[in-house]
Amino acid sequence: MIVQRLAVIGLGLIGGSLARALRSAGAVAHISGYDPDPSRRDDAQRLCVIDRVCDTPAAAVRDADLVVLAVPVLHTVEALVDCLPACKLEVVVTDVGSTKSSVLGDVARACGELPPWFVAGHPIAGTEKSGIAHSQADLFRRHRVILTPHEHQDRTALALVTRVWQAAGARVVEMDARRHDAIFAATSHLPHVLAYSFVDMLARLDGSDEIFPNAGGGFRDFSRIASSSPEMWHDIVRANAASVGELLDRQIGELQQIRAMMHEARWDELKALFERARSARERYLAQIE
Amino acid sequence: MIVQRLAVIGLGLIGGSLARALRSAGAVAHISGYDPDPSRRDDAQRLCVIDRVCDTPAAAVRDADLVVLAVPVLHTVEALVDCLPACKLEVVVTDVGSTKSSVLGDVARACGELPPWFVAGHPIAGTEKSGIAHSQADLFRRHRVILTPHEHQDRTALALVTRVWQAAGARVVEMDARRHDAIFAATSHLPHVLAYSFVDMLARLDGSDEIFPNAGGGFRDFSRIASSSPEMWHDIVRANAASVGELLDRQIGELQQIRAMMHEARWDELKALFERARSARERYLAQIE
Repeated sequence: MIVQRLAVIGLGLIGGSLARALRSAGAVAHISGYDPDPSRRDDAQRLCVIDRVCDTPAAAVRDADLVVLAVPVLHTVEALVDCLPACKLEVVVTDVGSTKSSVLGDVARACGELPPWFVAGHPIAGTEKSGIAHSQADLFRRHRVILTPHEHQDRTALALVTRVWQAAGARVVEMDARRHDAIFAATSHLPHVLAYSFVDMLARLDGSDEIFPNAGGGFRDFSRIASSSPEMWHDIVRANAASVGELLDRQIGELQQIRAMMHEARWDELKALFERARSARERYLAQIE
Repeated sequence: MIVQRLAVIGLGLIGGSLARALRSAGAVAHISGYDPDPSRRDDAQRLCVIDRVCDTPAAAVRDADLVVLAVPVLHTVEALVDCLPACKLEVVVTDVGSTKSSVLGDVARACGELPPWFVAGHPIAGTEKSGIAHSQADLFRRHRVILTPHEHQDRTALALVTRVWQAAGARVVEMDARRHDAIFAATSHLPHVLAYSFVDMLARLDGSDEIFPNAGGGFRDFSRIASSSPEMWHDIVRANAASVGELLDRQIGELQQIRAMMHEARWDELKALFERARSARERYLAQIE
């Protein structure tokens, strides 16, 4: 048993999957949960993912040893402020947001300074499907979880959160928060912006009704992340706007260069760019397989 | 039996898969094949996909009732010119190129006018993997094949190619060549350009060694098509440059609008764009499922 009493605030894909994973690992004795949306609370109850679904955040966190804030990233600090007065003194709180500098900044502002018991985390898992109905016990298995310890970090709190994620099957990595945000702007946040933008552009073309039925497997995979939660991704892009904006500028610049190659019939350069990209992706696949 | 003697020029993923599909459907009596690359000829021989692998295009097409040109799209007319002198008078020739106006234009120029026995086709199937070693008999099953009949089209030739693709498990659709090119610029050619450009941009960032190991499933799917054959996709973008270029301009414009929304903190507009894109993709999924 790693945690006696766990509280999950935010009963979506991530919160639900963590509850399932810890329960199936026998790592937790009791799980309470809260979500501001009554229909999500009903889902959690019906699916038996949470032992006790509560009507207020305070009721959910009372007696909890560990509180996991699994809400869209811009709501993290609000969720923290809502439940903090009801928490035990020795509580450990962690989050699952996809951006880390913004969360640490928000928490520092709300608490005066960064509290030792707050551990910032980001599980690199999830699908384009949202909601506790899609939660699964093995969502984190063999995935990375990034923790970004801060200057006032209590090492015991950090160790607890590490063990919890390991019990869920994840591989825990520590990283500086700003470095985290730059890396995930590149591998995750920018691709979401590109995918949303591409699908929206297509949908607004004349004759788009005829376009979509002719889309094949390439389109399907390329656009998969455009089915992700707009609320969640709005929060992420907004919370990491500096890093995402810088990369978006670079991406626009690169596309303008491709446009110039096409205009000026510099086809060998275009082919060389395609070849460089394929090689880079093959190196990536070799690293992860 | 739909075809007695089939010749496949270009022993890659598509040519190899069509040969396997027709053989396993019992739709062909004999398959000969040719590829300019000796190592591909060896692969075809070793994998027993082709009955007779030939050293020249002329040897492969002699006595063939149907010739399939399965080469990168800018090499289609060259492949046709190489084998035409050795073909029977009553031969039917088809291609599998991803762009159709360019192929029809090239063939018209080479032959004086569009020949009745030439049927332009495009199977909407394939993976990012190239080569006959990845060929599979069910590659076309339940996939679309677009045929773009021209003004001198012989209806018997068109019917033969239709039956061949149906025997391979595909659903055959007829369409105007220019409309085809506009649609596939949107669903296929532009996403390939975007994916190549994105991966290349990332690979050239400082610290890209640290970036790729932190890429998750979203990155993997989004960038999958950047592992496609650079030669093949160079040909496609070049052959359909007008349509792809127009869409690339629109895409750059849309990304610049997103950048402006971020600069000016118009976050509700950004969220509305994400929501529109998700709805459009859900409509697409509803159509294909």
